[in-house]
Amino acid sequence: MQVLDNAKKICISVIGSGDDALNPQIAKIANEVGREIASRGAVLICGGLGGVMAEAAKGAKENGGLTIGILPGEDAGSANPFIDITLPTGLGFARNVLVAYSGDAVIAVSGRLGTLSEISYALLKKKPVIGIHTWNLEQLSGRMPSYEAHSYLDGVIRCENAKEAVERAFAIIENKEKR
Amino acid sequence: MQVLDNAKKICISVIGSGDDALNPQIAKIANEVGREIASRGAVLICGGLGGVMAEAAKGAKENGGLTIGILPGEDAGSANPFIDITLPTGLGFARNVLVAYSGDAVIAVSGRLGTLSEISYALLKKKPVIGIHTWNLEQLSGRMPSYEAHSYLDGVIRCENAKEAVERAFAIIENKEKR
Amino acid sequence: MQVLDNAKKICISVIGSGDDALNPQIAKIANEVGREIASRGAVLICGGLGGVMAEAAKGAKENGGLTIGILPGEDAGSANPFIDITLPTGLGFARNVLVAYSGDAVIAVSGRLGTLSEISYALLKKKPVIGIHTWNLEQLSGRMPSYEAHSYLDGVIRCENAKEAVERAFAIIENKEKR
Amino acid sequence: MQVLDNAKKICISVIGSGDDALNPQIAKIANEVGREIASRGAVLICGGLGGVMAEAAKGAKENGGLTIGILPGEDAGSANPFIDITLPTGLGFARNVLVAYSGDAVIAVSGRLGTLSEISYALLKKKPVIGIHTWNLEQLSGRMPSYEAHSYLDGVIRCENAKEAVERAFAIIENKEKR
Repeated sequence: MQVLDNAKKICISVIGSGDDALNPQIAKIANEVGREIASRGAVLICGGLGGVMAEAAKGAKENGGLTIGILPGEDAGSANPFIDITLPTGLGFARNVLVAYSGDAVIAVSGRLGTLSEISYALLKKKPVIGIHTWNLEQLSGRMPSYEAHSYLDGVIRCENAKEAVERAFAIIENKEKR
Repeated sequence: MQVLDNAKKICISVIGSGDDALNPQIAKIANEVGREIASRGAVLICGGLGGVMAEAAKGAKENGGLTIGILPGEDAGSANPFIDITLPTGLGFARNVLVAYSGDAVIAVSGRLGTLSEISYALLKKKPVIGIHTWNLEQLSGRMPSYEAHSYLDGVIRCENAKEAVERAFAIIENKEKR
Repeated sequence: MQVLDNAKKICISVIGSGDDALNPQIAKIANEVGREIASRGAVLICGGLGGVMAEAAKGAKENGGLTIGILPGEDAGSANPFIDITLPTGLGFARNVLVAYSGDAVIAVSGRLGTLSEISYALLKKKPVIGIHTWNLEQLSGRMPSYEAHSYLDGVIRCENAKEAVERAFAIIENKEKR
Repeated sequence: MQVLDNAKKICISVIGSGDDALNPQIAKIANEVGREIASRGAVLICGGLGGVMAEAAKGAKENGGLTIGILPGEDAGSANPFIDITLPTGLGFARNVLVAYSGDAVIAVSGRLGTLSEISYALLKKKPVIGIHTWNLEQLSGRMPSYEAHSYLDGVIRCENAKEAVERAFAIIENKEKR
């Protein structure tokens, strides 16, 4: 396992829709993101449910990785079968904050409104956010009223595939450590 | 006070940037939203801090309304002076969920990332969301990959001014009650 | 309405079991606590459900008071019919923290484990806690190992009836303001 | 690592005071609890800060274990140096709920009000709670008003030392799995 400082391991949060009827292309990307994270010895953190969360956790487990699921419900039983460590919060969607805060970087794969809330929180905390086929906050900047400068709108780094996304995440994390 | 059922009063959440260096046009709109909410006998709920939250609460108090502030910190002292009832949560940005859930409708005035998280949560809970000069989720629909249908993207109802926004909010709430 | 500073109204949190099969003596006390709070112009805050929460809110409404329910669920519909302002949190039992933090004083009427968590949180935040037939933390102090000094154990002020409890709560709050 | 079902690993939450000026006897017990948990291949979960949390995590790391810290703050930097995986929540004391829910069993070593809130939450969720020199809920049963039956008061299993406590925790968890 790679270690940031003292015992702390590098953690990457993977976010995206929990819908199990996932587009196969998105499922494949999520799985590859999980595999890449595990291959680099980092811990995968996600919301613990289905869809992108399950695919990413499956990818990590297939590659010998460690997976953590921060669940909305009060019971561990709702976790997908690829989660090593279940954290049942009972907080409902408010647990999205924790998923966003827990990663040294956040990788978004597609996603809907829950994912949008997580991207918002990650950017609020100035976490690196890498997006694949997901919400594009930059598009809005041109349309917002001129009296609102949204300099944070360049916060989502857009990548086309899993390998590139994980590489970017690690490059940013490792660069931060050097500073 | 208008009442939904039993004792329950109608509550409108007003969301927007907490930055006190608010554009004067945005400050004026927030104040008018607060006044309009109070004039209709509804309770104004907000995040309790400065900027749009303070302006809206000020407007409500100027019109004899009742105001509630759901604060991120643990202490009531951080509330703006126009808040009648302070709810210190100690939850940080996770309190955004509560602001989004507590209104029978949510009115967004401009806003940044915190506001975006609140819009996401309100739409997740299928609350009516009325927006004035704020994030435009609809713009994204054309750019999302075709395999992701975002039917909820029509969730933000766009208005140009405070009066229209509050009217729309009440029309939706009252229509719901009739059903 | 009494006001602490600026617009802020005095709020009293009432905590106790949500079990509707309440002992009639406890129900009567809870109702009287609510009536006394309303008669002094303060806002009653509670967890919004049944049992002690419903009885106290009913007492407040019978006396023209204002009531707030901080609900564990995501929907306003679970509130008892005596709640004016419903705050659905979706946080489950974690909402107990908010009930404890929101009162300028906390009055516990009997209660079980949820009430014990709220007493703990209120004392952690150094809130005045007044107890009627409730948990007695002091009893434990004699049995704790001598190497743990629990000076906070005198935190729960024990009263025998509703009138005395509300009087004590207000005496403490008003004394604080003077300082 | 022992596994409950699918990938899920056994997790034990260790709770107690965060005060670093810990009584040496309590510090020794906390360290031994951590060592015992690690020696059985389970994951140690705690609140991530100092005192009992740091001693238990240190013990687990000295024995090759894996440690998780569910932090009250928003930043990973507040974790003690023996935490592998930091989960900054930004929820303040409300994160106590998560510590209580995340363990398959909860072991309390001494502790104060925060620990009492965690014991309350763990018992509310019917988690096995093992206590060493900690709050004694059973003592109250005789003193509570007769109209309040507290059948859950036998919830804290009292042990005299670390080895016995961890043995009891595992015996209960493994017995549950058989059923």
